Amino acid sequence: MRRIDGAIARAWLATAVEEARAGLAEGGVPIGAALYGADGALLGRGRNRRVQDGDPSTHAETAAFRAAGRQRSYRGTTMVTTLSPCWYCSGLVRQFGISRVVVGESVTFHGGHDWLAEHGVEVVVLDDPECVAMMREFVARRPELWHEDIGE
Amino acid sequence: MRRIDGAIARAWLATAVEEARAGLAEGGVPIGAALYGADGALLGRGRNRRVQDGDPSTHAETAAFRAAGRQRSYRGTTMVTTLSPCWYCSGLVRQFGISRVVVGESVTFHGGHDWLAEHGVEVVVLDDPECVAMMREFVARRPELWHEDIGE
Repeated sequence: MRRIDGAIARAWLATAVEEARAGLAEGGVPIGAALYGADGALLGRGRNRRVQDGDPSTHAETAAFRAAGRQRSYRGTTMVTTLSPCWYCSGLVRQFGISRVVVGESVTFHGGHDWLAEHGVEVVVLDDPECVAMMREFVARRPELWHEDIGE
Repeated sequence: MRRIDGAIARAWLATAVEEARAGLAEGGVPIGAALYGADGALLGRGRNRRVQDGDPSTHAETAAFRAAGRQRSYRGTTMVTTLSPCWYCSGLVRQFGISRVVVGESVTFHGGHDWLAEHGVEVVVLDDPECVAMMREFVARRPELWHEDIGE
C-alpha cells in the first residue's frame, strides 16, 4: 500500500466533516467518519447518533463501517474520522484489519491511534483547525453529553 | 465491587447462550451477550446480526450495549458474552468503563480479554462446554462466515 497523499487525505476528511456538521445541526455529537476502499471509492459514511437515535453504540466510525455493509476484506481501506478514534473505534479498526486511519484532529481528545500505529495501521493526523474548533465549541457547550459519549 | 459469584455468572451466561441459540436458528453467527447492571438487573441483551441484518457492526456485545440504551455510567456493570470478545468489543468495554466481563469460552477464539484484565477489568472465563460446542460446530460448518465476522 502506498502512503496516502496529503491532498487526498484532506479531500476525504471533507466527507467526514460534512457528517459531523450534519450531526451538529441535529443536536448530536459532532463527529463524522467515512470508509474509503483501496481503490478510493467511498464505501460508507456516517456520524455519531447517540442523541438522534438514542443509540450509544453508533459512533461515527461504527456508523461508516455499518453503512459500508458486509465486506470480505478491509485490506487497503481507509477510515477517515474527524476525531481521534476512541478505544471502541480503534478496536474496530484493529479487528477488521482496516489499513489506514486519517484523523482530523487529536487535540481535544487523544484516543487509540498510537496503539493502532504500533499494530501496523498507517495513521495520518491532520490537525485540522475546523475539526478542532467544532469539537472545542461542542465540549465547552455540552460537557455532560461529551463525557457520556466517551464513558467518562 | 465484589468479585462475582460463580453461580450468578453461570445464570447470566444462560441469557447470552439463549441469544446465541436464537442467532444460530436464524442462520446467523451464534454469539450472544447481555449487559447486567451493578444491581444485577438485565440492562440489555443481543446477538450477532451480521447475517440477519447484513450489519457487520452488530456483534453480540455491541447489540447488548445498544439495547441497554444511553447510560450515564457503566461502573459496576457486567458484560456477559458466549465468546471471548474481539478487539472491537474489547475496545467497547474499555472505553465505556464496563467493570466486568464474563466469557463463556475462549477456546475457539481468544480475543482481547487479557488486555482488558491488564486494564483493570474483572474477567471471568467459564470454559462452558455448550459454548465451546456451539462455536466449534459453527466454525467447522461455516468457516468463511466466521472469518468474515472477525476480519480474517
